[in-house]
Amino acid sequence: MLRGLTGAGMGALSGGEELIRLAGKYGFQSVDVDALPLIEKLGEEGAAGLLDEHGVSIGSIGLSVQWRAGEAEFLEGLQRLPDQAAAARSLGCTRCCTYILPSIDSAPAHFMAIATRRLRQCATVLGAYGISLGLEFVGPHHLRTHWRHPFIWTMEETLDWVAAIGESNVGLLLDAYHWYTTGLGTDAIRSLRAERIVHVHINDAPDVPVEQALDNGRLYPGEGIIDLSGFLNALHDIGYRGPVAQEILTAEQPAESPDQLAQRSKAGFDNVFALAGLPY
Amino acid sequence: MLRGLTGAGMGALSGGEELIRLAGKYGFQSVDVDALPLIEKLGEEGAAGLLDEHGVSIGSIGLSVQWRAGEAEFLEGLQRLPDQAAAARSLGCTRCCTYILPSIDSAPAHFMAIATRRLRQCATVLGAYGISLGLEFVGPHHLRTHWRHPFIWTMEETLDWVAAIGESNVGLLLDAYHWYTTGLGTDAIRSLRAERIVHVHINDAPDVPVEQALDNGRLYPGEGIIDLSGFLNALHDIGYRGPVAQEILTAEQPAESPDQLAQRSKAGFDNVFALAGLPY
Amino acid sequence: MLRGLTGAGMGALSGGEELIRLAGKYGFQSVDVDALPLIEKLGEEGAAGLLDEHGVSIGSIGLSVQWRAGEAEFLEGLQRLPDQAAAARSLGCTRCCTYILPSIDSAPAHFMAIATRRLRQCATVLGAYGISLGLEFVGPHHLRTHWRHPFIWTMEETLDWVAAIGESNVGLLLDAYHWYTTGLGTDAIRSLRAERIVHVHINDAPDVPVEQALDNGRLYPGEGIIDLSGFLNALHDIGYRGPVAQEILTAEQPAESPDQLAQRSKAGFDNVFALAGLPY
Amino acid sequence: MLRGLTGAGMGALSGGEELIRLAGKYGFQSVDVDALPLIEKLGEEGAAGLLDEHGVSIGSIGLSVQWRAGEAEFLEGLQRLPDQAAAARSLGCTRCCTYILPSIDSAPAHFMAIATRRLRQCATVLGAYGISLGLEFVGPHHLRTHWRHPFIWTMEETLDWVAAIGESNVGLLLDAYHWYTTGLGTDAIRSLRAERIVHVHINDAPDVPVEQALDNGRLYPGEGIIDLSGFLNALHDIGYRGPVAQEILTAEQPAESPDQLAQRSKAGFDNVFALAGLPY
Repeated sequence: MLRGLTGAGMGALSGGEELIRLAGKYGFQSVDVDALPLIEKLGEEGAAGLLDEHGVSIGSIGLSVQWRAGEAEFLEGLQRLPDQAAAARSLGCTRCCTYILPSIDSAPAHFMAIATRRLRQCATVLGAYGISLGLEFVGPHHLRTHWRHPFIWTMEETLDWVAAIGESNVGLLLDAYHWYTTGLGTDAIRSLRAERIVHVHINDAPDVPVEQALDNGRLYPGEGIIDLSGFLNALHDIGYRGPVAQEILTAEQPAESPDQLAQRSKAGFDNVFALAGLPY
Repeated sequence: MLRGLTGAGMGALSGGEELIRLAGKYGFQSVDVDALPLIEKLGEEGAAGLLDEHGVSIGSIGLSVQWRAGEAEFLEGLQRLPDQAAAARSLGCTRCCTYILPSIDSAPAHFMAIATRRLRQCATVLGAYGISLGLEFVGPHHLRTHWRHPFIWTMEETLDWVAAIGESNVGLLLDAYHWYTTGLGTDAIRSLRAERIVHVHINDAPDVPVEQALDNGRLYPGEGIIDLSGFLNALHDIGYRGPVAQEILTAEQPAESPDQLAQRSKAGFDNVFALAGLPY
Repeated sequence: MLRGLTGAGMGALSGGEELIRLAGKYGFQSVDVDALPLIEKLGEEGAAGLLDEHGVSIGSIGLSVQWRAGEAEFLEGLQRLPDQAAAARSLGCTRCCTYILPSIDSAPAHFMAIATRRLRQCATVLGAYGISLGLEFVGPHHLRTHWRHPFIWTMEETLDWVAAIGESNVGLLLDAYHWYTTGLGTDAIRSLRAERIVHVHINDAPDVPVEQALDNGRLYPGEGIIDLSGFLNALHDIGYRGPVAQEILTAEQPAESPDQLAQRSKAGFDNVFALAGLPY
Repeated sequence: MLRGLTGAGMGALSGGEELIRLAGKYGFQSVDVDALPLIEKLGEEGAAGLLDEHGVSIGSIGLSVQWRAGEAEFLEGLQRLPDQAAAARSLGCTRCCTYILPSIDSAPAHFMAIATRRLRQCATVLGAYGISLGLEFVGPHHLRTHWRHPFIWTMEETLDWVAAIGESNVGLLLDAYHWYTTGLGTDAIRSLRAERIVHVHINDAPDVPVEQALDNGRLYPGEGIIDLSGFLNALHDIGYRGPVAQEILTAEQPAESPDQLAQRSKAGFDNVFALAGLPY
């Protein structure tokens, strides 16, 4: 597995370039940054050179297409997707991810039909450029009732959705926080085939009843109570070898500098990988 | 367009053979009967001969696969589908239909995902045998709250579902009662391309507020208040040339004999087609 | 049906704007021009205004994606497709077409597999913007052996390919010259459902043995020996109501001015539509 | 990886039951037998019990659908597929395989289009029952010209075909003989993701120029010159954990009894797995 960083939890980053430098400095192997702005700024060669220089690859880009909005907005986003996918491909990135809100304001069955068609269209475009689409189910209980109607939030529902979309390059983004807040154990991971997992997020949860764990109340790996050792071992055992990227959503920006936060993240990763008995 | 009959509204029929005979006797051109039992009883040649003798074709078979049930039941039904499709094909039938309950007990978004995948699987099997799958949206207001959660019931939602299923042989079953109870006008029909319509049901509604029109409170064509003239003309104008099959769901079986009911149906069709100015 | 023009056969046109003006001047209702360059030059409002002013719509854009080339070139083209599709959509165009060379240099089975996947990807993008993809089979005998291996050139093969691609927005571009040079009669057209036809080309063939009719030896409608009356009537009878666009490929640019050629084209259309007994 | 047997190379077997018994007796973990006839003879419980008793699972069933024949024959086969798939599923089998003839008599591009659609239909049915479809490319040189036109025979072409079929449950059957006769090395295997491999065949080739290795001239593993150690190690390294099933096609039935041949097979597997340094 690759140790990865996202911008979430890294404080006031000046941009993707800083994240790449910090990742390299503290021994991370992948970063989740969007490829197109990087190339627009540095050129394809420059961007590839920067990644090489710091020994990191791009783990995943984010799906920028607004698939939850009106059709016009969706189509505008779809217009930009091939450029983003081509940029990712040119830097060797093979993943693109989006998350699923567990509740929505619009009628859930109708929205599911629309979103299924839209995500299939996105997956087809991404697939042309060799990129998989990962869907992240979102577990925190408070979000299940935040909007008017429940949508979906379990791994099983998300796998059923992946089957409904029906493209071979669609799978899960498995996030430790959502795995924990939906009450899953390691057997749930062991029931998966590794190829169903497009991407992995790691983070930790405070010692509060699981129903009270807030989406933006996440901790750095090893600082909380999630069984990350079981999480990582189950992923390793089923053969997952992709990135495990830290994503720490918090109510307020942490006070430390990005460099200090990267150092803290490294300590967390060292800790949980050591506890898991997994090679670093 | 072909004038058609279904068993619904024909009283205590002894079976498909009687429906075929009555259809022929009263000038109907198609019947909705399942092809497989007919062939199992009469042989393929016998069944084709019976249809020929009475000058009728099979408009549509019903989708017998339980796509709303548990997975085991769904798969059992799917096992029988190719035989049913092959039987239909051997008698020249190119349509298979199912209806959508406007409310359900299970979680709507999750069920939509499962049902999308299942109906795609059904459509693929049907498509191999040259058969289209028609989805009937169901309009009566009381059914929208009959089960725990709203599902979908409008034409627009159903078209979005057809797009989500994503197979080229899936379209609408347009039923006059559901067209009426969902408040559509002729412009809604005129907005469709004919090929999106797999099958059509005709019937009429009592003179009560539309919110009170019950699913099993239907009348024979021309005996109620639906603008069937507009309905038929809009279908004709967009180029629909398939069956228009009478389907009369009632709370109690009508007292008349099947022969009397077929005669009454013929009178209704004569009436509404004449009013519509459409050739008979 | 809509009387349409393409640039082929119109001489030394200065561009799409001139074609639009000439179409309007001589009573044509559609033109095949690419929407994106028009919008880039005139703005969306300007382009729409120009079409309105001359009473013409865009019949079809051309598929610019190089689906016969190497993968890199294909992907570059795919990157531009959403912009082209969005431009077409914004001007009300719902068709995009490409042709199939009847022979190829690469191994035919392998190329068919690659092209099937690529055209599905194109069709998915186009479909998102409400646009259908028409595949034109190409009949002239000399092209069947022009490259090393035979590929496909009959209507039946092309329909089988449409089924292999498997997207609901893919169908045929039916060209009178290819209909004629593949030896089809009106029954072949009558066997089609109108929705399988995305677009139609009209032109005529010289009075030479059909095996000697050259792809770039086409005549204006009514100046040759193709049974255009049968062709148009069959299309009309199955319910085709889209554009019938003139496409005249010739070895040398005709000597007349675009205006004279548009006038000559109008005379041809008047002639063949009158012979066919079809409303103008 | 699971050590597996097929009937090919086991002499005059009385049927699937004998293969199961011999597999168990000589330490094999999977057998390739069709599930439906086994269940028809022994009942589902009896069949499952027999497999359990001998400690073997079913590696793969064969695709019985005639996808290379005329449409009527194809559809007849498709009618039986759900029963076969359901039977396989009920015994825990998740694979179904078919092979690709490297040359054919019909026009290759057209046949590729037809076969793509047919295999997609088969894959959809199989997928409903949780079964993957493996396509076996066939390498021996003499078969490339045995029928009139070349079709496809390389791994790369087959992967392109898998992409054209476009269903997520379709992948490769990788056979050591075809890997060898198409000139592939271990890097070709290492370029694959394990999930693209549905099933594996093992066997060996005589010490003749590779162009002269006949399809029915195969040897038992370890008795020939194929680098089976490299083959197995590459499969292991990319994470393949499914069956590796012996398939020995010979011009004449071997003279030994099935028991002797199973013993000889066991010796071959012991030998090549030991050389490969892989756990037994």
